Amino acid sequence: MHEEQRQRASELLHEQGIDAALFASSASITWLTGFAPPVQTGPNPFAAAPPLLWWDGDRFTLIIVDALAGLAAPFAEEADGAVVAYRGYTIDAPIDSPSHLRKVLRHFWSHSPAFKPARVGVESWALPAAVGGLLTATAASSSEWVSIDNWLAPLRMIKISEELAKLRENFRLTDIGHAAARRATFAGVREIDVWLAAKTAVEAAAGGRVPMGNDCVVGYRAENIGGWPLDHLLRPGDSLIVDLSTIRYGYWSDSCATYIAGEPDARQRQLHRVVSDALALGASLLRPGVVANEIDRRLRQYIANAGYPVYPHHTGHGVGVTGHEAPRLTPYSREILLPGMVIMLEPGIYFPGETGVRLEDAFLITETGAEQLTTHDKSWPPAAA
Amino acid sequence: MHEEQRQRASELLHEQGIDAALFASSASITWLTGFAPPVQTGPNPFAAAPPLLWWDGDRFTLIIVDALAGLAAPFAEEADGAVVAYRGYTIDAPIDSPSHLRKVLRHFWSHSPAFKPARVGVESWALPAAVGGLLTATAASSSEWVSIDNWLAPLRMIKISEELAKLRENFRLTDIGHAAARRATFAGVREIDVWLAAKTAVEAAAGGRVPMGNDCVVGYRAENIGGWPLDHLLRPGDSLIVDLSTIRYGYWSDSCATYIAGEPDARQRQLHRVVSDALALGASLLRPGVVANEIDRRLRQYIANAGYPVYPHHTGHGVGVTGHEAPRLTPYSREILLPGMVIMLEPGIYFPGETGVRLEDAFLITETGAEQLTTHDKSWPPAAA
Repeated sequence: MHEEQRQRASELLHEQGIDAALFASSASITWLTGFAPPVQTGPNPFAAAPPLLWWDGDRFTLIIVDALAGLAAPFAEEADGAVVAYRGYTIDAPIDSPSHLRKVLRHFWSHSPAFKPARVGVESWALPAAVGGLLTATAASSSEWVSIDNWLAPLRMIKISEELAKLRENFRLTDIGHAAARRATFAGVREIDVWLAAKTAVEAAAGGRVPMGNDCVVGYRAENIGGWPLDHLLRPGDSLIVDLSTIRYGYWSDSCATYIAGEPDARQRQLHRVVSDALALGASLLRPGVVANEIDRRLRQYIANAGYPVYPHHTGHGVGVTGHEAPRLTPYSREILLPGMVIMLEPGIYFPGETGVRLEDAFLITETGAEQLTTHDKSWPPAAA
Repeated sequence: MHEEQRQRASELLHEQGIDAALFASSASITWLTGFAPPVQTGPNPFAAAPPLLWWDGDRFTLIIVDALAGLAAPFAEEADGAVVAYRGYTIDAPIDSPSHLRKVLRHFWSHSPAFKPARVGVESWALPAAVGGLLTATAASSSEWVSIDNWLAPLRMIKISEELAKLRENFRLTDIGHAAARRATFAGVREIDVWLAAKTAVEAAAGGRVPMGNDCVVGYRAENIGGWPLDHLLRPGDSLIVDLSTIRYGYWSDSCATYIAGEPDARQRQLHRVVSDALALGASLLRPGVVANEIDRRLRQYIANAGYPVYPHHTGHGVGVTGHEAPRLTPYSREILLPGMVIMLEPGIYFPGETGVRLEDAFLITETGAEQLTTHDKSWPPAAA
């Protein structure tokens, strides 16, 4: 699993004169190994540090607390991979996973004294200071320390087939969530009730727990662009923006629809039509070679020309091991779309505290254009004659 | 909010000769400030670092990404508190929160050149290496760096009334979750279905999202002590261990019951009786002055004397800003129970791959004994005559 990612990362590091590297961000580690620990209630409570991945210039070693070793077992089977587990929970002595991790790292970094990397890359914003101190005291004692934070982000833009399969499964779940949210939206329920309908449908379909973002907000909320569901009641005619991501296998989906509690009014219908058309315009522009900010510009212009306030957020973004990654579709972004990128488009129109509409689909950039990955129903019934 | 915690922490740090400190663990930050960012889908994707809390020997400053500033607003109102937000998400330029955080910290630590702390405490296992480097390059350039990881854990054992209110709300939610799980347990459903019944009941009652742990495992799972719900089907007579924590306001509850899909058999009834009695025994022992491992010993002995395998986990533990904290009720633990501690007791008997029973309640240690905080129904119907 994920061999190609490791090859591409190794090539980049070698090119940049990095001899060894320590990864600590969850995005890098999932992308490089396929290992994705649970996130719903925070990090493992008995772990000293987040999962770490050490690259010695050749092989990758995942260094994790023992409780996660089972989940990481597939990576231990890889030809260029290994897993080292340190002790976390115990009832025999005070829990002291920092000491256990320190011991493992010290042994690990000291076992081949001939290994003297000149330049060691570290994800310095994700690596705990204590591990950094230990690294400089052992393997990298005479090394130059180079920050490699975010170095992998550009590589992550192009998805390989293994990643696409994970993303497709997430989009399938998101579609299921939307179908449930759509059915659950009517006057008299609360935001949280609609959310729970979606969440339940997703986890029932997955047969297990699936972390889920992002927004479920009724139009009359002052900040109706986004936010987590609360107990705001839906009244007849209220709009509800439902923006769903699922995180399965460490990969994110994304998607948005806007539902109405009952019948939309004429203004809402107009907003919905303009946003639908903007989304369709964006979809028609997606193909290899297009510059990201050109799509951004065209969609903003479309909304402005229709006489509406232009959304204050991005027009779109990539998804993968994070829910928002390169390429970004924003005014400054000069990134060029390429086959294998997975892109979200999400135009919207908002009247804060009144109503709002956002619609979002996912697309895989292909050799000739784009394939839509989300299939959730964003349509509204035609107005009665 | 949480002034008393800050006072107690300041006293400890002063006593230990610490002149300034940088906290980075979520447990410390929630305990010191009351601020609790969402966790369900991982850390804020646009934050450079976890929330940080700087203590200059007098005042506490929370340093967080702008998206979290609203949630932290109450702390900015505190007499000894302040909030500094750095820029995260933007569409005007590439997202570069590390640079924004670095700028804020540099300004912050350089603005009073006269401030030269001799000894600076840092939570070195939670602090990013990059922030540590910046700290040593500015405020603490001539300082000694002292690891203060876990220093607050002993202080956190005694809960003050403000914390008890938060814990009680969590135990109320857990009770609601259990009532729903109990109703949803019958042959033909899956672990995940029971879990979703509990989750939905909890979040519907809370009127918002509530992270939830811990276990929902059918007896025939090989690892039937614990684990997240999957799509294992409950067959007639299967036991189901449901161990629920909720995390609201940054505080954890905990609780466990064992339900049966249909009718328990004679062996299961016997297990349930022994575990119930062990739990009752434990409850009867809770009072100020008792040593933690004495309770642990008595409960293990009770299970062994009944002829059953003794559970391989702790007998109990504290809860607060984490789901498992001091005092631990384990064979080695010499901690003495004191009024204000909140203690879980959770004896169990397991036959891996066959069946198992665990029952768990929460107790507040009072001046004279203990008050039970969980009220979920753990009883089984009497056997038909």
